[in-house]
Amino acid sequence: MKPWVKTETFTKSGRGSVSFVGGGPGSVDLLTIRGLDRIQKAEVILYDALLDSSFLEIFPHDAICLYVGKRSGQHSRTQEEISALLVEYASENKTIVRLKGGDPSIFGRLAEELEALKKNEIPFEIIPGVSSVTAGAASMETSLTLRGVSRQVIILDGHTVLEDDKSWAGMENFQGTIAILMGTGKIRELAEKLMDKGVSPNTPMALAENISGKNEIFSTTILSDAKINGIPKTTTGPGILYVGEAIRNLLNRTNSDHITAVKP
Amino acid sequence: MKPWVKTETFTKSGRGSVSFVGGGPGSVDLLTIRGLDRIQKAEVILYDALLDSSFLEIFPHDAICLYVGKRSGQHSRTQEEISALLVEYASENKTIVRLKGGDPSIFGRLAEELEALKKNEIPFEIIPGVSSVTAGAASMETSLTLRGVSRQVIILDGHTVLEDDKSWAGMENFQGTIAILMGTGKIRELAEKLMDKGVSPNTPMALAENISGKNEIFSTTILSDAKINGIPKTTTGPGILYVGEAIRNLLNRTNSDHITAVKP
Repeated sequence: MKPWVKTETFTKSGRGSVSFVGGGPGSVDLLTIRGLDRIQKAEVILYDALLDSSFLEIFPHDAICLYVGKRSGQHSRTQEEISALLVEYASENKTIVRLKGGDPSIFGRLAEELEALKKNEIPFEIIPGVSSVTAGAASMETSLTLRGVSRQVIILDGHTVLEDDKSWAGMENFQGTIAILMGTGKIRELAEKLMDKGVSPNTPMALAENISGKNEIFSTTILSDAKINGIPKTTTGPGILYVGEAIRNLLNRTNSDHITAVKP
Repeated sequence: MKPWVKTETFTKSGRGSVSFVGGGPGSVDLLTIRGLDRIQKAEVILYDALLDSSFLEIFPHDAICLYVGKRSGQHSRTQEEISALLVEYASENKTIVRLKGGDPSIFGRLAEELEALKKNEIPFEIIPGVSSVTAGAASMETSLTLRGVSRQVIILDGHTVLEDDKSWAGMENFQGTIAILMGTGKIRELAEKLMDKGVSPNTPMALAENISGKNEIFSTTILSDAKINGIPKTTTGPGILYVGEAIRNLLNRTNSDHITAVKP
């Protein structure tokens, strides 16, 4: 075992390059400064769904911009097609940005695209982004960890909760916050499953929709209620579910509690 | 239960306001555009450790800038003192930025400071940031989730792993990545504890130090080896430990493997 550092050198001259950019939760000003820099220098941009349309305004006018996103099963391009596009444009010596929603390292399907680039010896970099998970917490004005209450955060997708019967046997003692992505279609089943695993029926559950977008909206309940009634979705946009004692302060919150928000 | 939205209005005129800004993992250009905007407009900035010194260059020249960070037990200000400072400057009608490392909702001690502001009816907003956890993954050029291998990410601190005997009984079936903050001082004990909980001795473990900083450096091993030898820290800076099958591709990596990095 020998430590390694990142050395930023090209070994292939005259090749294009790919910057994977975490686009953040949606609002364009939650993009990082480095991400914006790469977008502004891009000749080709392949972008996902889940991003605010105002992102289009920061794309260079002369860049080739292709929407390759998928949402709720509607795939505009397969993963193989996206990888092939990256390799194709790189071989044309283009400076490419692969813009992904949230952060690329969590449910970003990064591995498949990286593999294609490595195989073809195409230079790349990965620029992290603000995860929708923490952006949702920020919008709800809550912390996901809380001294003496929540000491950990688990991020996973709805399928994993529903299909994983083996792990997490000790959830009755769990002190933490669970963030569930891609689970808003099965809220009743998720609440039931978590209770089956030992999570208390009284545990708060929140649904954050369209996080950081103009129409973001939040709802809360407790698991036992969610098992019976679910949480009605208010919009057609994507949502994240949060489960845990750290968000108890959000229960029964109303619009009028938001007197403390700062006008930008 | 009634959904709520965020209404951005002031009810108290002539009061100062506080923008909590997630400063990201360290490098100043991993700050968000919105975070930069608030910093540039700030009259008072209270900032934590863990940020690159180049942050000082973006602070307005006429702003009051106070370092209130803590690192490895060295507290320059208590949490109560920080809260009192926020309230004090707000009562002087100042525009305040409370700059925190990483993202404020994960181990950001946000709750205590929010409480003080709410009690004093001081307007605030929370701007999420890039978490060091995902920034470390980006720097190591890996994903934390991986189809068929890692379906979840657990973020927690070293104390929680070592002290939590009750939960996670089913870790022998765990398919995911564990990110451990504040644990680099007890790597042997952490590796042993995870194996006791059922995680396979053959599971890869990585240490990322000074994530996104000029001197960032990475090391990998497997749990059984870490239990005996630990992972020698290369720097005195902060580090994050990653455990899971998703990072197996990083084992035995060397500098020369980094031929694919993009020169900015």
